[in-house]
Amino acid sequence: MSVLVVGSIALDTVKTPVAEHADLLGGSASYAAVSASFFGPVQLVGVVGDDFPKDHVQFLAQRKIDLTGLQHATGKTFRWSGEYMLDMNTRETRSVELNVFEHFTPTLPSSYNTSPFVLLANIAPSLQSHVLDQMSRPKFIIADTMDLWINIARADLEALLKRVDMLILNDSEARQFTGENNLIKAGKRIRAMGPRFVAIKKGEHGCLLFGENEFFSCAAYPLEEIHDPTGAGDTFAGGLAGYLASTVQGPVTFEALRHAIVYGSVLASFNVEAFSLERLRTIQQHDIAARYESFRLMSQFEVTL
Amino acid sequence: MSVLVVGSIALDTVKTPVAEHADLLGGSASYAAVSASFFGPVQLVGVVGDDFPKDHVQFLAQRKIDLTGLQHATGKTFRWSGEYMLDMNTRETRSVELNVFEHFTPTLPSSYNTSPFVLLANIAPSLQSHVLDQMSRPKFIIADTMDLWINIARADLEALLKRVDMLILNDSEARQFTGENNLIKAGKRIRAMGPRFVAIKKGEHGCLLFGENEFFSCAAYPLEEIHDPTGAGDTFAGGLAGYLASTVQGPVTFEALRHAIVYGSVLASFNVEAFSLERLRTIQQHDIAARYESFRLMSQFEVTL
Repeated sequence: MSVLVVGSIALDTVKTPVAEHADLLGGSASYAAVSASFFGPVQLVGVVGDDFPKDHVQFLAQRKIDLTGLQHATGKTFRWSGEYMLDMNTRETRSVELNVFEHFTPTLPSSYNTSPFVLLANIAPSLQSHVLDQMSRPKFIIADTMDLWINIARADLEALLKRVDMLILNDSEARQFTGENNLIKAGKRIRAMGPRFVAIKKGEHGCLLFGENEFFSCAAYPLEEIHDPTGAGDTFAGGLAGYLASTVQGPVTFEALRHAIVYGSVLASFNVEAFSLERLRTIQQHDIAARYESFRLMSQFEVTL
Repeated sequence: MSVLVVGSIALDTVKTPVAEHADLLGGSASYAAVSASFFGPVQLVGVVGDDFPKDHVQFLAQRKIDLTGLQHATGKTFRWSGEYMLDMNTRETRSVELNVFEHFTPTLPSSYNTSPFVLLANIAPSLQSHVLDQMSRPKFIIADTMDLWINIARADLEALLKRVDMLILNDSEARQFTGENNLIKAGKRIRAMGPRFVAIKKGEHGCLLFGENEFFSCAAYPLEEIHDPTGAGDTFAGGLAGYLASTVQGPVTFEALRHAIVYGSVLASFNVEAFSLERLRTIQQHDIAARYESFRLMSQFEVTL
């Protein structure tokens, strides 16, 4: 089954302690859609300006991503620039130019509105809700968010949470959102706000998944070199959603979500090995399978190794 | 088989944001020995003063810990006082009174020096080495350490590392010791200094275990309330060593160490649920078995659940 991915499409300028690159393909929808495309069909909704390189569109099309919902607007593409500190965990936004993204309204082509799986990648929660208004009872809805919306659009985010099956956010956002320092309490508190499942990403420390009476702690792949963390969370969410859409027939179980979390982590671990989506351009199915096996070997203790 | 535990025995005064208790049983050897005693025979080496409560000695004896190596010195017992901040992760040492611990020399009774498993709990690395000088080829030697020794006794610690099979330290200590921010690199670098195995503890984020070509990432048990983190690392090391001593017949394999790491984590997760060793006084074997199963359920994704 297909997964609908809605989010931002950007041209990023990224500086790390070792390199700087400009006008890279970026944005939450770009990372998430490409990541999901390793598992099955993807429908994309987003907006680009008239400066958006044709090469990027071709790359998305080559990944068999349905681009019927890609809007081409007059003006410049959304641009983001950021710099990573020496530890590669802390980053500072240097500049944001919303450009055509400022007036983006995610309008679904009629061919999209029955998509059973929906990934609302990181955009304003009011726009995420607007996507759901156009859909007829999707089977499983995942939302990602960020600190900005917790700060300036909390009411919209809270309204959205009542309509989604799963929220993904990182540890500092979970603490900020709930005012709770303990992540276990924070995860439970967010569940009580609506979503049946909550995933809290912890970067190099992996990810926690909360269900009604279930809990899963997923390790992070042990990387010695991180070249660009940009889009890791979006890639994680895309891989997770793509895996679910391609494998789950009946209801989405916690057991399916465990596997989905691992696949999301696998894709994210590749993504940070190079700038932009460069690593996702080169990996193959057997790379994903091999790293999935690595996750098994490094986190299981009661199975034949 | 038995495990020899050498370390400090203290009377602790601990303040947390919610409570303060004085003259609690503490010290690296107390936590480690009691934790190890859940798995099999333990031989203890340490020193106490003439103010050390008889109740504490009785408690250790009731845990079937061999106290032949417990030294009773004239003077006061080692005292430590610390305060935990609101996040329960950061702590400040308020006072240290070495007392009889200042001139402690770990002398092994002759009945101890063939113990196959040795846990050198946190004391000065020169004393840890002195223990090894008295032993005839133990099968597996584990050393714990702390930031203090990295700062003031690095040469001693480096000399010790060439003589031990495994080093246990926490994430900030691993970074401090190696000057390497990336924990995967730090773990590998410490392995290159001697020990075949290195365990890096990450508190609420679990633990990383490094072998020659193997890697294991162990989750932390999801605790909503931490009452006193004091001794968690010692309890972890003790449970790990006790499990190995009680189950490993031949050489210590990476697979055995995976299980040992989980058992150490189980014991540590109980320990922080109450002040001092209070929780270790009340848990039973079935509690340990149940929490081990929780670890399996929360970290496995390729087994029947």
